[in-house]
Amino acid sequence: MKKLEAIPVTAYRADGFIKNYQKLVKDTVIPYQHEVLFDRIEGIEKSHVGQNFENAGRVLRGEDPADGFYGMVFQDSDAAKWLEAVAYSLANTPDSKLEQDADELIALIEAAQDTDGYLNTYYTIKDKDKRWTNLLEGHELYCSGHMMEAAVAYYEATGKDTLLKVMLRNMEHIYDVFITNGHPGYPGHPEVELALLKLYRATGNPHALELARHFIDVRGVDSEYYKKERASRDWTVWGSDGRDPYYQQSAMPVRELSVATGHAVRAGYLFTAMADLAATDNDDALQDACLRLWDNITTKQLYVTGGIGQTVNGEAFTKDYDLPSDTAYAETCASIALMMFASRMLEIAPKSDYADVMEQAFYNTVLAGMQLDGKRFFYVNPLEVVPGISGEVNTQRHDLPERPGWYTCACCPPNVARTITSFGRYAYGENADTAFCHLFASGEIAFANGLKLQCKTDYPYDFNIFYKVSGAGKLAIRIPNWSKKNVLTLNNAKATAELKDGYAYLTVSDGDEICLTLDSAPRMIFANPRVPRLTGKVAIARGPLVYCFEGNDNAGDILSLRVKTFSDMKITEPIPAINATGIQLSATRIAKTESLYSTTPPTEIPTEAIAIPYYTWGNRGKNQMRVWMDYEK
Amino acid sequence: MKKLEAIPVTAYRADGFIKNYQKLVKDTVIPYQHEVLFDRIEGIEKSHVGQNFENAGRVLRGEDPADGFYGMVFQDSDAAKWLEAVAYSLANTPDSKLEQDADELIALIEAAQDTDGYLNTYYTIKDKDKRWTNLLEGHELYCSGHMMEAAVAYYEATGKDTLLKVMLRNMEHIYDVFITNGHPGYPGHPEVELALLKLYRATGNPHALELARHFIDVRGVDSEYYKKERASRDWTVWGSDGRDPYYQQSAMPVRELSVATGHAVRAGYLFTAMADLAATDNDDALQDACLRLWDNITTKQLYVTGGIGQTVNGEAFTKDYDLPSDTAYAETCASIALMMFASRMLEIAPKSDYADVMEQAFYNTVLAGMQLDGKRFFYVNPLEVVPGISGEVNTQRHDLPERPGWYTCACCPPNVARTITSFGRYAYGENADTAFCHLFASGEIAFANGLKLQCKTDYPYDFNIFYKVSGAGKLAIRIPNWSKKNVLTLNNAKATAELKDGYAYLTVSDGDEICLTLDSAPRMIFANPRVPRLTGKVAIARGPLVYCFEGNDNAGDILSLRVKTFSDMKITEPIPAINATGIQLSATRIAKTESLYSTTPPTEIPTEAIAIPYYTWGNRGKNQMRVWMDYEK
Repeated sequence: MKKLEAIPVTAYRADGFIKNYQKLVKDTVIPYQHEVLFDRIEGIEKSHVGQNFENAGRVLRGEDPADGFYGMVFQDSDAAKWLEAVAYSLANTPDSKLEQDADELIALIEAAQDTDGYLNTYYTIKDKDKRWTNLLEGHELYCSGHMMEAAVAYYEATGKDTLLKVMLRNMEHIYDVFITNGHPGYPGHPEVELALLKLYRATGNPHALELARHFIDVRGVDSEYYKKERASRDWTVWGSDGRDPYYQQSAMPVRELSVATGHAVRAGYLFTAMADLAATDNDDALQDACLRLWDNITTKQLYVTGGIGQTVNGEAFTKDYDLPSDTAYAETCASIALMMFASRMLEIAPKSDYADVMEQAFYNTVLAGMQLDGKRFFYVNPLEVVPGISGEVNTQRHDLPERPGWYTCACCPPNVARTITSFGRYAYGENADTAFCHLFASGEIAFANGLKLQCKTDYPYDFNIFYKVSGAGKLAIRIPNWSKKNVLTLNNAKATAELKDGYAYLTVSDGDEICLTLDSAPRMIFANPRVPRLTGKVAIARGPLVYCFEGNDNAGDILSLRVKTFSDMKITEPIPAINATGIQLSATRIAKTESLYSTTPPTEIPTEAIAIPYYTWGNRGKNQMRVWMDYEK
Repeated sequence: MKKLEAIPVTAYRADGFIKNYQKLVKDTVIPYQHEVLFDRIEGIEKSHVGQNFENAGRVLRGEDPADGFYGMVFQDSDAAKWLEAVAYSLANTPDSKLEQDADELIALIEAAQDTDGYLNTYYTIKDKDKRWTNLLEGHELYCSGHMMEAAVAYYEATGKDTLLKVMLRNMEHIYDVFITNGHPGYPGHPEVELALLKLYRATGNPHALELARHFIDVRGVDSEYYKKERASRDWTVWGSDGRDPYYQQSAMPVRELSVATGHAVRAGYLFTAMADLAATDNDDALQDACLRLWDNITTKQLYVTGGIGQTVNGEAFTKDYDLPSDTAYAETCASIALMMFASRMLEIAPKSDYADVMEQAFYNTVLAGMQLDGKRFFYVNPLEVVPGISGEVNTQRHDLPERPGWYTCACCPPNVARTITSFGRYAYGENADTAFCHLFASGEIAFANGLKLQCKTDYPYDFNIFYKVSGAGKLAIRIPNWSKKNVLTLNNAKATAELKDGYAYLTVSDGDEICLTLDSAPRMIFANPRVPRLTGKVAIARGPLVYCFEGNDNAGDILSLRVKTFSDMKITEPIPAINATGIQLSATRIAKTESLYSTTPPTEIPTEAIAIPYYTWGNRGKNQMRVWMDYEK
């Protein structure tokens, strides 16, 4: 048992802001994605996921493979992420039709599992002999990992164990390959490690834990594994040569890592599993590595929007203090991975630092990943777009001014869906002794120790958070670092709380009413001058929300705006098209000029500028957007 | 006859700043490059250029090809550019040893020419049948063009016509292929067009003019030529598919072009030839296209350092107002191409706008291309480097904090050498009526109309330019647009001059003494707020020199500096290591902080900052460099 764990997804019933998002996912995202998986939507990239499982089953039964395999090597994981999101959604809101859809997909998956437990449609359909020969690009362990996560979620949500049994058999197969038969490889795209730990926690199966530990321990011990693997094989999926172990997070044993390098999602998933295992095993060396990596990411490589992975080239981390706004990658999935890493760090030690970053990633990059109507998604989350340049010049080809439709590589949409539907697991934690409120989320929470909370708040737009207690026990409520003025009351009197590592610890009794009032003032954020691209710039935030400026609210032109750092910032009336309030502040506008360069100092015209929450950008057509603004005093 | 032409290279004998650079080229660059061409320098990338010609000769004589061909498909052009630089250098300063080296190389080249006039070692050695089948990548016309330029230069400098005859035979071969036999293609890398016009001017050969006109006229008429050519061929040099006619400047007939797109050097060479032909033929439609392209480049795509071609991807232009400092490409050769384009635009109409840009390119990007000791070169000229990021993260892999040694693709070093040694042709022009001083360059100039000038100045560090006249006639002296206070005296009295398009027109007599005093005040430059990357930034210039800030002069850290826009700017004492004065001005320094982001407004410490001429950067080891600084009032 870890010192602290997330609550089960069934233990939180959302309300308010989170409920609205969960409803959007349930009503729009999940049904749409289901239709995508079965290729029932015209005019978008074919998915073929359902058909892949169907065809793999045919192959296993010795039948004609029909139209074979189609899609990316990790196409199966789209089904897994969808199922995981469905599971959480069913836990939140039962829906027999949806559950039936899920059961039907699970039946297809079950039929696509080989007798030895192997499960992957790409290899089953295309070439059985290639199994486990390309860990670098092959994604077999990645797909298994996602399916294990789905299996655990579906079991916990519905009590149905068909998929769980499938994935336990699959786990035993992997165990045979890597432990019993000593395959020297380790996951090219980490994911299965964190999934194995979930599987272990759900079932108590010791092989799952042993396998997770094995993959973490063996990684980077032979830092040339992928290079050798590539040399031993006459085929590749997309030409990776495996020569850069830093890209693969395998340059050294993971306990020696200090700097986040390479593919950001892979790094995030790996670090999540490392933190999880460190907490599970009380492994100090692993925990120290996690602390160093956390520190490197959050103090040197983190966008203010909670984005990570600065470059499109390899979807990767770059170097400390390299945080370009306009060429940013900052993949939605990478911020989800960062949330996972943060949630596991909280399980090592509850410190608000971790929850702060988790919240920063969620309310900014993760939510920005989805259009407000749930119909379109950003993979890439730039902090600045300028139509005419963004999405057009080749250094910014990936930085789009509007969310595109469904992608060939559809990892982000279902990843956002499962994150929103399992929000309670990020927001609330517990141990035998104490119930933890990491994030502020309206709804009802039932802790394992019998304590129940009813949380009521209009967060992140209001900063009063009310809790009504049922039962009795110890409660820890996070006080975010960004909140400089905090009032905590218990039954309308100042609460006596012990403050430790950014959590207020209280002893509560049945019927208690708690109110936490956080700092509601908008604030200005300045970057460390070691960040070349952010010198002379300022960003605006309020609560967990980072704001940005869009042309729509600012006469079509934000490039010529300089905000005043010492001006009052006022909350605007709600802006209907984005269903959010903005922040208004004083600025000067540089008068338009014709020449490219001029020795005439810019003519400055006083004006007001309006910022909107970053997650709401790009919902009103193509226009300029900027998080980091020029400023003057 | 054009309305205005450059003086012959023999008509200018340099002194002062230009002489020093010519001496550096003669004493260091040319000898070093000669040793490179013949692979006599250890530890650098093999060139094999001399051996390629030797081996091509062997193939033609039916002998064993020895070690065959080595290098880029355009390797021959390294010899041509070296010879051209040598020719100009010999015109400036005779040197019998150097002339002998050149004659020996010319003999090798002559022996490598096929009986039909074909000349290219790559195809002659590797596969004769591939001749003229890959205009997209093949560089046969490009190499011929550079060799024609060398032949003309060597003939004009030494009177020797061996190479000129070789290249006239080569020109007639090309004429046969493209005119007589109707090959439908046109140059993949424009260059031969401008060279043919030089050959025409040196020899009067009408086929040279006709061929230049043909290549310009036919370009883009079939915008799919390269795509078709690629489809017709089962081999490529480096995989170009020819599908983007904008990259090839062939999306439309050249008289319809309005926007500079694609590979910047190719574009610059093409536009140079277009302007040359427009002046030669009095072709209004061609001239209008040149004006539109000039306008697009200089008002929307020009770095303040005179660099063009924003992106490493294809060494290409990107989009209007996209002028990133840290990911810049701004190839040295592209700025040389821009100087050529400017010099031909001056021949259409003498306007100081053209000469201003020519000067901006030369004194900043072109000179920055070469280390102050002449031993190392920049291909790429960023406007900001931060060690730890520049040259390391993949969007800036090409932006190096220090000049590397010799390149595999060695186009820039000899291109810089030939530009410096032929500086007189950029600086001075003439027509039957008037002598033109486009740039300010110490030395003696003999115009064809009999007028002679002795120019004395310490420009670009002093802004008094003295001219002593021999003979009599009309003289036009450029008044740069950047100079806001100008005094022109004739024999110590205010001169009566007609000012037109930025030129002061004077009638002068034998013994006249003219003094032009230009504005010596440093100035601040602001970019149009349409340029996303330059909002809130300021650059500093004095005369033609753009300045930059290096860590060396600023306590090792320029990122935390904000310069004061209304402070006095003072000229510093000379800085010995760069042999140049700097500019000192008031600034504030943001105090160092540890956290990545902070809500505390930066603590500002008043300080002084020192800027140095951009062309001198990167001569004192790795350190930060920035042209565009944050500013405050």
